[in-house]
Amino acid sequence: MEYERQLRDGQALIERALQSCFAGREPMANIYDAMEYSLMAGGKRIRPLLTLEVCRMCGGDVAQALPFACAVEMIHTYSLIHDDLPCMDDDDLRRGKPTNHKIYGEATAVLAGDALLTAAFETALEQSSGVPSDRVVAAAACLAHAAGARGMVGGQSLDMAAEGRAVTRRDVEDLQKLKTGALLSAAAEMGCVIAGGGTDDRAAVRRYAQKLGLAFQVRDDMLDVEGDERTLGKPIGSDQANEKTTFVTLLGMDGCRELVDTLTDAAVAALEPFGGRADFLCWLARALAGRES
Amino acid sequence: MEYERQLRDGQALIERALQSCFAGREPMANIYDAMEYSLMAGGKRIRPLLTLEVCRMCGGDVAQALPFACAVEMIHTYSLIHDDLPCMDDDDLRRGKPTNHKIYGEATAVLAGDALLTAAFETALEQSSGVPSDRVVAAAACLAHAAGARGMVGGQSLDMAAEGRAVTRRDVEDLQKLKTGALLSAAAEMGCVIAGGGTDDRAAVRRYAQKLGLAFQVRDDMLDVEGDERTLGKPIGSDQANEKTTFVTLLGMDGCRELVDTLTDAAVAALEPFGGRADFLCWLARALAGRES
Repeated sequence: MEYERQLRDGQALIERALQSCFAGREPMANIYDAMEYSLMAGGKRIRPLLTLEVCRMCGGDVAQALPFACAVEMIHTYSLIHDDLPCMDDDDLRRGKPTNHKIYGEATAVLAGDALLTAAFETALEQSSGVPSDRVVAAAACLAHAAGARGMVGGQSLDMAAEGRAVTRRDVEDLQKLKTGALLSAAAEMGCVIAGGGTDDRAAVRRYAQKLGLAFQVRDDMLDVEGDERTLGKPIGSDQANEKTTFVTLLGMDGCRELVDTLTDAAVAALEPFGGRADFLCWLARALAGRES
Repeated sequence: MEYERQLRDGQALIERALQSCFAGREPMANIYDAMEYSLMAGGKRIRPLLTLEVCRMCGGDVAQALPFACAVEMIHTYSLIHDDLPCMDDDDLRRGKPTNHKIYGEATAVLAGDALLTAAFETALEQSSGVPSDRVVAAAACLAHAAGARGMVGGQSLDMAAEGRAVTRRDVEDLQKLKTGALLSAAAEMGCVIAGGGTDDRAAVRRYAQKLGLAFQVRDDMLDVEGDERTLGKPIGSDQANEKTTFVTLLGMDGCRELVDTLTDAAVAALEPFGGRADFLCWLARALAGRES
C-alpha cells in the first residue's frame, strides 16, 4: 500500500509538472492543443517515475530531476504520435482515445511531435536551475543519445524493416533494446546523473532499467494476446493481424511468463548495492511484471 | 575576394564536420542513409556559418562552436524534410534533387527528420568538450527554444493555418520571424554564447540576425518571382500557384527591394560595436541581400 501511494504521488507530481508546460501557450494555440492532447492523455508515466525515483534512491533532490522526468515523457509521447501516423503504423486509437492525427490532421500531428521532441530539450536545459551545469549536460546528452538513430528512432526504423519478415529472438531483442529499452534506460540513468551518482551507480541503474525494459516489452506482447481490451484501451490481436514476430510467437505464453520473471529478478538483483533505498524500484519492477495494462 | 574565400573555407569546414557525423553508422543503415541524403545535399550553410563567424567576431575559438554549427544545420535540414512531406507542402524537389520521402518513403523521411532533430542536441551536448558547461547549456537551450513551438515549429504551424487566407504584412512578418528568423537568430546567438559574450553582445548579435533573417525571407519571396529555376534548383512561381500571401504580393517587387536594403543596413548597423571584427558578417549580409539563389 505504501508503495502504491508513492506511485500515485509520483504520478500526480509528474502530471502537474507536465501540465505547467502549457501555461503561456498563445499565440500558437493549435499546435499547443495538439501537444497537450497527447501529452496529457494519461498513461502510467513509467519513464518519468524512473527518473524521479532513481534520483531519490541515489540521494538526489527529486525536484531537480523533475524537468528531466518531463523531458523523457515528452520524447515518449512524440514517438507515439509519429508512430501512429498513417505512413507508419496507421493507428486510430491510443489509450482508448482517437490518435493525434485523427483529431488534428496529419500535418499538425507531425508538427506536434516535432514540437514535443524539441520541448523535451528546452525543458531539460531551461528549467534545471540548481543542478550543476555539467550534470545537466551529461543528463541531456544521455537522453539525446537514447532517443536518436542509435536508440529509439533506430529501433523504430529496424522495426519497420522487420515487419512481415521472419526474424529470430536475437533480432527481436536487439530491436526492442533500441525501440523501448534505450529510452527507459536513459530515464533511469538521468535520475542517477542528476543526483551526482558515480560510474558504478550509473552502471547498476542502467542494468536495472535494461532488464525492466525488456520484461516490459515481453509483457506487452503477452497482453496483446491475453489482455482485456477495455483495461488496455486498445484492441488486442494486432500483432497477429500484422504477422509480427513477437516474444509470444517465438517463445509461447509460458516461455514469455518465465522470461518476464527471470528478467525481473535480474532487474531487482542489479539494485542490490543500494540496499533498502531500492525497495520502491524493486516493487515497481515486480508490479510491472504482473500488470494487466 | 578575401571574404569569398573566408565564406568558402567556412563552408568546407562545415561540410567536413557534418560528414564526420556519419562515421560509425551501422546497424541502422537505412535511416542514416536518409539523414545523410538531406544533410549533405548542399545548400549555403548560412546558419552554421553565422554560428562560427559570430563566435570568431566575439573573440571565441571557432573549433568550439563547430558542434553547435552542425546542430543548427541538422535542425534546419530536419525541418525541410518534414515540410516537404505529402501531408505538409507535398514537394517533390529540393535543391534540384528529389525530396527525402520521394527516395526513402514517407515513414523513413519522418524518422530521418526525427533523428536529425535529436542528433542536433546529441552533437551539441556530446561533442562540446572544452566549452564551459554553463555555456553549453545556455547555447543548447537557445537552440531548443528557437526550434520549438515558440519558434520555428510554431511558425510552420501558423504558416499552414494562414495558407490561402488573406493576411496582413504584420501577419507575414510575425510568421517569418518565427519560421525562419528564430533559428537564424539562435545560430548567431549561440556563437556569441560559446565565445563567452555578454548581454550587450548577445543583444547586438540577435538584432543583426533578426534583420538579416527577415531580409533573407523577403529576398526569397522575390526569387520565387524573378529567380532562375536552374540557379535556384527548384521551380519558381510556387507561391502564386498556392495563392500565398508573400512580401511580393504585399509590397510589390520595388517595395521588396527597398525593404531588403533597409533591413540589410539595419543588420550592418547592429554590429557597429564590434568595429572591424564585424567586416565579414557585414559583407555576408550584403551578399545575401543580392543573392540569386
